[in-house]
Amino acid sequence: MKRRFILLVMFLLSTGVSLFAQQALFGGQQIVSPEINDDNSVTFRVLAPHAESVLVTGDFLPTEKVQSPMGEMEAPGKAEMTQDEKGVWSFTSEPLKPELYSYSFVIDGFTTTDPTNPFLIRDVASVTNIFIVGGGLADLYKVNDVSHGSVTRRWYDSPGLGMDRRLTIYTPPGYESSSEKYPVFYLLHGAGGDEEAWIALGRTAQIMDNLIAQGKAKPMIIVMPNGNVVQDAAPGEGNEGFYKPQFMVPKTMDGTYEANFMDIVKFIENNYRVKADKANRAIAGLSMGGFHSFHISRYYPNTFDYVGLFSAALMPREDATNKVYDDIDGTLKKQMDNGFKLYWIGIGKTDFLYNANKEYRAKLDSMGMKYTYMETDGGHIWRNWRIYLSEFAPLLFK
Amino acid sequence: MKRRFILLVMFLLSTGVSLFAQQALFGGQQIVSPEINDDNSVTFRVLAPHAESVLVTGDFLPTEKVQSPMGEMEAPGKAEMTQDEKGVWSFTSEPLKPELYSYSFVIDGFTTTDPTNPFLIRDVASVTNIFIVGGGLADLYKVNDVSHGSVTRRWYDSPGLGMDRRLTIYTPPGYESSSEKYPVFYLLHGAGGDEEAWIALGRTAQIMDNLIAQGKAKPMIIVMPNGNVVQDAAPGEGNEGFYKPQFMVPKTMDGTYEANFMDIVKFIENNYRVKADKANRAIAGLSMGGFHSFHISRYYPNTFDYVGLFSAALMPREDATNKVYDDIDGTLKKQMDNGFKLYWIGIGKTDFLYNANKEYRAKLDSMGMKYTYMETDGGHIWRNWRIYLSEFAPLLFK
Repeated sequence: MKRRFILLVMFLLSTGVSLFAQQALFGGQQIVSPEINDDNSVTFRVLAPHAESVLVTGDFLPTEKVQSPMGEMEAPGKAEMTQDEKGVWSFTSEPLKPELYSYSFVIDGFTTTDPTNPFLIRDVASVTNIFIVGGGLADLYKVNDVSHGSVTRRWYDSPGLGMDRRLTIYTPPGYESSSEKYPVFYLLHGAGGDEEAWIALGRTAQIMDNLIAQGKAKPMIIVMPNGNVVQDAAPGEGNEGFYKPQFMVPKTMDGTYEANFMDIVKFIENNYRVKADKANRAIAGLSMGGFHSFHISRYYPNTFDYVGLFSAALMPREDATNKVYDDIDGTLKKQMDNGFKLYWIGIGKTDFLYNANKEYRAKLDSMGMKYTYMETDGGHIWRNWRIYLSEFAPLLFK
Repeated sequence: MKRRFILLVMFLLSTGVSLFAQQALFGGQQIVSPEINDDNSVTFRVLAPHAESVLVTGDFLPTEKVQSPMGEMEAPGKAEMTQDEKGVWSFTSEPLKPELYSYSFVIDGFTTTDPTNPFLIRDVASVTNIFIVGGGLADLYKVNDVSHGSVTRRWYDSPGLGMDRRLTIYTPPGYESSSEKYPVFYLLHGAGGDEEAWIALGRTAQIMDNLIAQGKAKPMIIVMPNGNVVQDAAPGEGNEGFYKPQFMVPKTMDGTYEANFMDIVKFIENNYRVKADKANRAIAGLSMGGFHSFHISRYYPNTFDYVGLFSAALMPREDATNKVYDDIDGTLKKQMDNGFKLYWIGIGKTDFLYNANKEYRAKLDSMGMKYTYMETDGGHIWRNWRIYLSEFAPLLFK
């Protein structure tokens, strides 16, 4: 029967029929894209015989400057692809540095994914293809031949928000078979993200598996909740069904999340084998999640020994009325006086939040609150957040 | 700061810049697609001002006949979309029956996903968009406001295959907080699939959450292993990194998987709170997974009280040499004589495996082995496999 199957598949490939009616037998274009060459240049290919112009765009190309209401910003570069006699368009990049990259094709002005590459990530509502050029830090983003933790999507009851909500939990290798108690790291997403963001775009499971295998990070539980209080789950995973994800959803930065964060901590501490004390709790987040981490850690000023602000949205909220935002300076001072092990700030040099972070550091300096600071190239991008996670996690619980 | 964020987002949307460099701020086309109308017709839209022809293709359209080496087969229909003055192409379907549907666009001959719909499924190497028209059985495929089980990706040690391998496990609502023991259902994928197939394309978690909430299925653990013995994990999730998934991979139907299946059963029974006896074990699979379920259940003829063959690849393997395939009739007779609760067969009327299943049923009839039989419309498609799961699961462990 194998031979008959193969005959059938060959037929499907040769006719190029997308045979939904026999879905498991799908063919697809028999070209390779992306192809990572020996010198770490990457060749992209796409069959589009009728197209007049095909571009590839992505973060592997030098950025271009564009004007925005926030000032000059960086946009991904574009490169023209060239067509061969069979209608296959191709482009080969310069040799690339080790990194996880995203890209799309633009065919006669229409932005599309690469039909030859089934590896995709969703960032807010946009889906792009990804590839990894290995080596250096990027080896942390790969699945390597090491022991692997477990990743669970689970629902917790939030009495404060009045609903069951979904979260993603990484438990380290050996958690299930051990009787040991583990420290917990709460890792928060940005605006437009959800409980899928860190595990998919952030490569959290791969980074942690590799750091733990190398002895660089302690085995720990990582909790990736959903920071949008109006959602029970990521778009498509909750009661609302399928709908287009939005960058800003209501009530994300009005104090409701921070005021109900202890529902998550209680759920974890009641349901997992954890060390439930300040020395064994860390909290960090990117962008809006950095805003949340800043406020949660000072609003509960004796709860977290480790705090990470990754490209954090740290501008003051003059319009906020929630009691969470009362007496920010007083609670921050309390947090400092209570003592902590690590207050970590990371920001990209071209991030539009750079100045807000600079002002915040000046405030910390003026009050004598110690922090560790890391400045990287680039802007408000996942590349930086993966780096920050890779730098921050090894500092925890030591 | 919210206002500044919104300004920035509005800028990005208005310029239509795909701003990789500020990834979280992605825009995208501001049109709705797909839109499910009140009468359950569905409108598809795509902005492609430079295109000369745009089609939508998918399993919501009547199928078309095509010739293949296996005889006449069904291919998904295609419909022409029409362009408005703004360059937006659209098509509205007939009112559709409740179902989970897949679709793609074909723009000037180039098959592509819908950039407005971030909900995608991968089937082998092809990625298509999905939507659900609710009602009837399709309500089982939705996330409803019921208690939700947990879904875990975990790695088990297979001494027989000499590697750690990834599997997907559904534990029912209440599993973690109870001290009860649960029955276990092993659910196997087809050729080209992996441990992601049933949870993504099969909507297993949604179907089980809903059936359990309605009191129609018993709470049970569902184990979705990877049936490709040369893989440690699904493409992109294992040591091989990102590569294009193939329909046939080596050693999928040579007996190796069946001979080492007990590594999975042992792992589950050692690591989960389960009832470890025949009365509390079920096994079922689709296509190649039906082949596996057939062989595993008779090779270990006193192990499973419940067996499901979904569009099973039941042709004889004259070329197979593995001892697993010795004495098929004898072991099947042993399985019958040992007794079992349910032997369930489901097949689509136009499935290319219909006759193979008919011959197999004749064999069972001739030896007096009882089975339950379900025949559905359509062919070798996920629509049928979701139906079979929805029919089979309520019959288990009762």
